[in-house]
Amino acid sequence: MKHSLGPGPINLPAPVWVIGTYDSQGRPNVMTASWVGICCSKPPCVAVSVRKSRYTYEAIVARQAFTISVPSRAHVKAADYFGIASGRTEDKLARAGLTAVPSELVDAPYVGEFPAVMECRLRHTLEIGTHTQFIGEILDIKVDEALLKPDGRPDGGKLQLFVWLDGYRAVGEMVGQAFSVGKES
Amino acid sequence: MKHSLGPGPINLPAPVWVIGTYDSQGRPNVMTASWVGICCSKPPCVAVSVRKSRYTYEAIVARQAFTISVPSRAHVKAADYFGIASGRTEDKLARAGLTAVPSELVDAPYVGEFPAVMECRLRHTLEIGTHTQFIGEILDIKVDEALLKPDGRPDGGKLQLFVWLDGYRAVGEMVGQAFSVGKES
Repeated sequence: MKHSLGPGPINLPAPVWVIGTYDSQGRPNVMTASWVGICCSKPPCVAVSVRKSRYTYEAIVARQAFTISVPSRAHVKAADYFGIASGRTEDKLARAGLTAVPSELVDAPYVGEFPAVMECRLRHTLEIGTHTQFIGEILDIKVDEALLKPDGRPDGGKLQLFVWLDGYRAVGEMVGQAFSVGKES
Repeated sequence: MKHSLGPGPINLPAPVWVIGTYDSQGRPNVMTASWVGICCSKPPCVAVSVRKSRYTYEAIVARQAFTISVPSRAHVKAADYFGIASGRTEDKLARAGLTAVPSELVDAPYVGEFPAVMECRLRHTLEIGTHTQFIGEILDIKVDEALLKPDGRPDGGKLQLFVWLDGYRAVGEMVGQAFSVGKES
């Protein structure tokens, strides 16, 4: 029997990604976002939704660029902190002891210690309500070399990712091969 | 040291959600999508990207509505199958032995056996490239009663969800409380 929770946003689950930008003084800033996701294969695009009140909002509009740094479980505290504090009043990366690496492709920095990053150029902006959706074209993906499989793709076990459900939960053991296990149906 | 993978879409990780629609004859159809995510809190909205070639594309355009059914690990084979086969040639729900439940709120069905569903009315359509992004307002969320905590919110452990990374991987143990663990930074 299903129970109605009413209308609302819900994470079933949602990614925990960190958006990197430069502010008007060129200072690196980061914010954590979960209303995010890949939204197109060609051109490869990612969508991130940001409230207008966030310091990151004006940075994306001004620079037309952002990065996404994907944290591992070793950085769960930093990722949560990046979603709580504001770059208007705090140098979040410095406080977390993490490194802003300038992208060579777009006008935005990424978090050097996180295992995977996407460098994005803004392509579309859509006002929805409380949130503005920014769609960025992914110009490059970078992953720590030690976390790649022999075929050059990221090793999902080694990445040690987590997602947001009723809290941050580990992405764990393999339960099926994609585009494969369903062929038995 | 980071290794460049070049531009591309990537799941780090991506949700595995099943879009439910009625076709032009009123037959229920489902397709699995991972280029998806919540994109606004008020109005609560979800974004799903669909290729024009998919049978689901024309159904969403015609009915201006869709549902999202979130599978548990017990349904990983069905979820994968729903992404491989086409509703043009197969009654996917019948073949998987699952039930199309008509939504009372929108003109679309959802998968009765899956633990959580969202019922959505189409609000925005954005052409991006290979994919069209449909943004739907979430009119209700329904979750199996047995999977709720005493506070009425879904129990992330009991939901038994999975995500797509380098395969389908279980959403596992809790590694931190959201909007909490970062306060220690």
